[in-house]
Amino acid sequence: MAFQYLTNVPLAQAQKEYLKLLKRNGMRPKRESVPVQESCDRITAEGIYAAISAPHYNASAMDGIAVKAGLTFGASETTPVVLKPEEYTVIDTGDPLPDDCDAVIMIEDIVKMEDESVKLFAAAAPWQHIRQIGEDICAGEMILAAHMPITPAAIGAMLAAGVLEIPVLKKPVIGIVPTGNEIILPTADPKSGDIMEFNSSIFSAMLKKWGAESVTYSIVKDDFEEIYKSVEKAASECDMVILNAGSSAGREDYSASVIEKLGGVLYHGIAIKPGKPAILGYKEEKPILGVPGYPVSGIIVIEQILKPLIAYCLGEKQEQKDSADAVLSRSIVSGLKYQEFIRVRMGKVADKLIASPLNRGSGVVSSFMKADGILEIPQGTEGYEAGTEVSVKLLRPLQELERTLVVIGSHDPLLDEVANFLHLSDSKLYMSSSHVGSMGGIMAVRRGETHMAGIHLLDEKEGSYNTSFIKKYFPNGGASLIECVGRSQGLMLAKGNPRGIASVRDLIGEGLRYVNRQKGSGTRILLDYLLEKENIHPENIYGYEREEFTHTSVATQIAAGTADAGLGIYSAAKLYDLDFLPICIEQYDLLIPDFAWETPMVQKILLILQSEAFKSKLEELGGYEIGQPGRIREL
Amino acid sequence: MAFQYLTNVPLAQAQKEYLKLLKRNGMRPKRESVPVQESCDRITAEGIYAAISAPHYNASAMDGIAVKAGLTFGASETTPVVLKPEEYTVIDTGDPLPDDCDAVIMIEDIVKMEDESVKLFAAAAPWQHIRQIGEDICAGEMILAAHMPITPAAIGAMLAAGVLEIPVLKKPVIGIVPTGNEIILPTADPKSGDIMEFNSSIFSAMLKKWGAESVTYSIVKDDFEEIYKSVEKAASECDMVILNAGSSAGREDYSASVIEKLGGVLYHGIAIKPGKPAILGYKEEKPILGVPGYPVSGIIVIEQILKPLIAYCLGEKQEQKDSADAVLSRSIVSGLKYQEFIRVRMGKVADKLIASPLNRGSGVVSSFMKADGILEIPQGTEGYEAGTEVSVKLLRPLQELERTLVVIGSHDPLLDEVANFLHLSDSKLYMSSSHVGSMGGIMAVRRGETHMAGIHLLDEKEGSYNTSFIKKYFPNGGASLIECVGRSQGLMLAKGNPRGIASVRDLIGEGLRYVNRQKGSGTRILLDYLLEKENIHPENIYGYEREEFTHTSVATQIAAGTADAGLGIYSAAKLYDLDFLPICIEQYDLLIPDFAWETPMVQKILLILQSEAFKSKLEELGGYEIGQPGRIREL
Repeated sequence: MAFQYLTNVPLAQAQKEYLKLLKRNGMRPKRESVPVQESCDRITAEGIYAAISAPHYNASAMDGIAVKAGLTFGASETTPVVLKPEEYTVIDTGDPLPDDCDAVIMIEDIVKMEDESVKLFAAAAPWQHIRQIGEDICAGEMILAAHMPITPAAIGAMLAAGVLEIPVLKKPVIGIVPTGNEIILPTADPKSGDIMEFNSSIFSAMLKKWGAESVTYSIVKDDFEEIYKSVEKAASECDMVILNAGSSAGREDYSASVIEKLGGVLYHGIAIKPGKPAILGYKEEKPILGVPGYPVSGIIVIEQILKPLIAYCLGEKQEQKDSADAVLSRSIVSGLKYQEFIRVRMGKVADKLIASPLNRGSGVVSSFMKADGILEIPQGTEGYEAGTEVSVKLLRPLQELERTLVVIGSHDPLLDEVANFLHLSDSKLYMSSSHVGSMGGIMAVRRGETHMAGIHLLDEKEGSYNTSFIKKYFPNGGASLIECVGRSQGLMLAKGNPRGIASVRDLIGEGLRYVNRQKGSGTRILLDYLLEKENIHPENIYGYEREEFTHTSVATQIAAGTADAGLGIYSAAKLYDLDFLPICIEQYDLLIPDFAWETPMVQKILLILQSEAFKSKLEELGGYEIGQPGRIREL
Repeated sequence: MAFQYLTNVPLAQAQKEYLKLLKRNGMRPKRESVPVQESCDRITAEGIYAAISAPHYNASAMDGIAVKAGLTFGASETTPVVLKPEEYTVIDTGDPLPDDCDAVIMIEDIVKMEDESVKLFAAAAPWQHIRQIGEDICAGEMILAAHMPITPAAIGAMLAAGVLEIPVLKKPVIGIVPTGNEIILPTADPKSGDIMEFNSSIFSAMLKKWGAESVTYSIVKDDFEEIYKSVEKAASECDMVILNAGSSAGREDYSASVIEKLGGVLYHGIAIKPGKPAILGYKEEKPILGVPGYPVSGIIVIEQILKPLIAYCLGEKQEQKDSADAVLSRSIVSGLKYQEFIRVRMGKVADKLIASPLNRGSGVVSSFMKADGILEIPQGTEGYEAGTEVSVKLLRPLQELERTLVVIGSHDPLLDEVANFLHLSDSKLYMSSSHVGSMGGIMAVRRGETHMAGIHLLDEKEGSYNTSFIKKYFPNGGASLIECVGRSQGLMLAKGNPRGIASVRDLIGEGLRYVNRQKGSGTRILLDYLLEKENIHPENIYGYEREEFTHTSVATQIAAGTADAGLGIYSAAKLYDLDFLPICIEQYDLLIPDFAWETPMVQKILLILQSEAFKSKLEELGGYEIGQPGRIREL
């Protein structure tokens, strides 16, 4: 059974037609009754009116005596009035006003006589110092309009007005049905080929944030009848259903035919990327949404298609995401056929908000976690040039982005630890780092797109690190080089060194599989230098073209047995318990442009580099030589 | 037992010293372990590292065949390579890569032969179309730093990396102890003198929004031993305690001595208003906060004193409120001795953000519900003149304020219904109305501080309504008068008219109690006109000086039996089932300045006025004559 994508319908049309169809089929906001005490952040289903007035009786607003105001008329400094004990009542703040009284006189304005009568030197105005019935809220008044969110103060106002239970919009319940033969529950010990089912956990958390509830059903095998039964059950028990995975046109995909049989399919395929194989289906008034298996595709589809339906059922009371204009740090190409959603990291560098596109792979859930914003490229647009100002939907508050240290350059695991120290020492500061290699870091500093760059560049002629590159790329100054660490570079090798590798020469051994770093990285430059010295042509190294972006990912490949050797730092080898053949100590420094120097983030980083806690952490990681981290290097 | 306020310590000092003392006594962020699936919006207690790589095996990124790349080297359009069936494996997206393969070729790039061998016209690069181990996350990598909030995508990333349970910061638990002899649980039928205990419900909802949890204990009578026992229990079971009421110096106040005996009191009395009688106490490392009984005072004290402590325990991960500059609509006077927190309504009118101070009574919980922002007046400042630009902490998003119709002027219950229709017809639009009478409305339009004003002003000479006033106050135009309704004005009288009132003359009857409207209101002007016609001097009317701000609150006083008569509209009398003596039909119109005309709010209001639903609602309310609501009146 093989499906075609039947449609490539524009997103806006899909959203509009889907809502229209579901409303025609009877979808409506539902309501339920809840105790007012439990109603915070719920949405009123209708106008809420006060049952009683608040205060519900006339109360004294002061400590003093309650009197008939008429008895005090004419009182003055020269002609005081005396009230007998039976003509006044002692009263405290909040006490009810006696029936025959209509004013309160403050305790400090009376003189008590020996016979318990009181002398007054000023007349009381009727209703003075009294909290009158309804001063706060009058019975019958509208307290809250329909479809308004309920705040803590509104809870107080409703209770004060004798309203104990109210009709609110019911949270839509979304049933999530995960499918797939390879799908297993999350575990720390999966087998090869197992795919962990974490989509439902992501979706549940998203749905909760949008004000909905979710029920996750058991994982269903790729079997038409099984899927049909499970989706039918979910549709009978919930208000909406997400059928996860199986919406693309692979050999085991039953989603579309299941939904078609259960009710109907409005569109199979929408013009968005990621997320195009989405199935917009329904059973009567209930949406049944077929969602691709890749987490990023799933997130986009649910956000674009399901969130508006939930908003409709909740009186459109969802928070709107803020947008901000940002400068694109590199060009991005997009297909004309789809509206594309690009995840970007963002940072405020020298008054410019910078957006850097993240990995576009739809399986890469970490890219969503790292994203600070979403850039939407409209259908029919080819993409944007680097430097273009684009509007980005923010996933984090702008204030946070303004206090985020942007680090672009060479990777070292110590950067993550520095990020941790930074945020722990000042909870308002954040760090966001991208790994583009040392040369990429230098260029980002030159373009004014980063506060800091990690670099380790060997000058082959001088045998020095970093300084000559800074002189070359910053001939007129503009950036300082900060000493960080010396680190041990060498060949990471499978545990026990089964291939008996003893030098760079051995990398050309028969059947030996190398894993390389990307062009422009300091480690790649070091390898090329080593190969040249040994007169080895890169063609003779199997895997020279296989590029990874971090030391850790090179180590990962060797630990997994898909490569035999790769150049990298000791701490990465140690993390994976690999053998390590040291080759040199290289200097890993931090390049900081002048304009970033006075930011609170950079100032804090300098303190961290000089701290004992940082040095202890380096010793724990292993393979570092510690001189005077934080010191400015002379050029 | 009478307490003095011992201190009048500035707020910033109180906050700082309190935190310092509690930290010295051992207060720290606590931690607990939670399943990752349940960790959304929690805060990491420490850096979270990947347990396994994601993906955890090399997987095909395409549907196609898995091969050894080496076997395909040299393949081209002119020199295709043929692989025998045993030299490739059919593979689907997500399937694990067979051990001896290192490349995937897409199904569309192969030609299948009759003997099941495949023909290739291009060489495969090693590791093409493979999702390598760790492409998303490498084992050992830091996924999240310490003290970071957990997002739905982070949940996915952690599960993908085999992290199933994580340490997060524990939500502080706050025990709330309500006290007072008059205090009862909320009810729709309280007795005179009963005070409903809704503070704990407000506080609970606030605490939850700040990431904490709360336990509300039973109401305790004003008895030293009882209060002591309850607070001691709360302090042993919770992380922090709120002791509500009894913190001022009235005759039944035990709070300070209870807290003193239990541990200690740092300050009793801080220089803020409302909230000055707060008690900043402690038992060892646990804060015990004595909070005034008035809800508004309590809200301010908890926000200013307890919220920072909760923030400390949650890694300072609370949302900061935005501020905005606004123009103050009227002067506000503040005592030099205190830092004052003024609740304000806000609206964006003709590009100016306007802040209008609300009722400052600390018992008026509805003022907090209506507030859009908080204006802080520093200690030592006398207040601000009308027209001053002030910085206001926003309680609602600025975007919402920009879409809020500001209505300032004469009150009619139909305005609440219009607000309801407005928001239901477009969930992005809101309405905020303040009741300052017809003349106040005209002045607000002239000052450019409102989008709309309800007015009903009788021109005694012409016998007309509204038009002559508009001509007088807008001689050069600038505003349009929109027909709304004719409404029946008359005397609201106690049910059954026990005083036998038959005309305005009867208002001077012996012992008759009148309740009036405030100066500048159309109804007050009407009364004065009627009295003059009858030659009655206001002095002869008992209660002439007793002012209420709405028709509803006048009706409330009569229904409560504290007044016998008051002038007002039929719908208010009907709401309270009062007798009504009609006097005239007056025209209630809406004045709209030109600059507001094109706002979406005003355009929508015009449609609502013309709708059948609005007319039905008017009939339900009663006492309205409906002509052509929404029509522009000629001047």
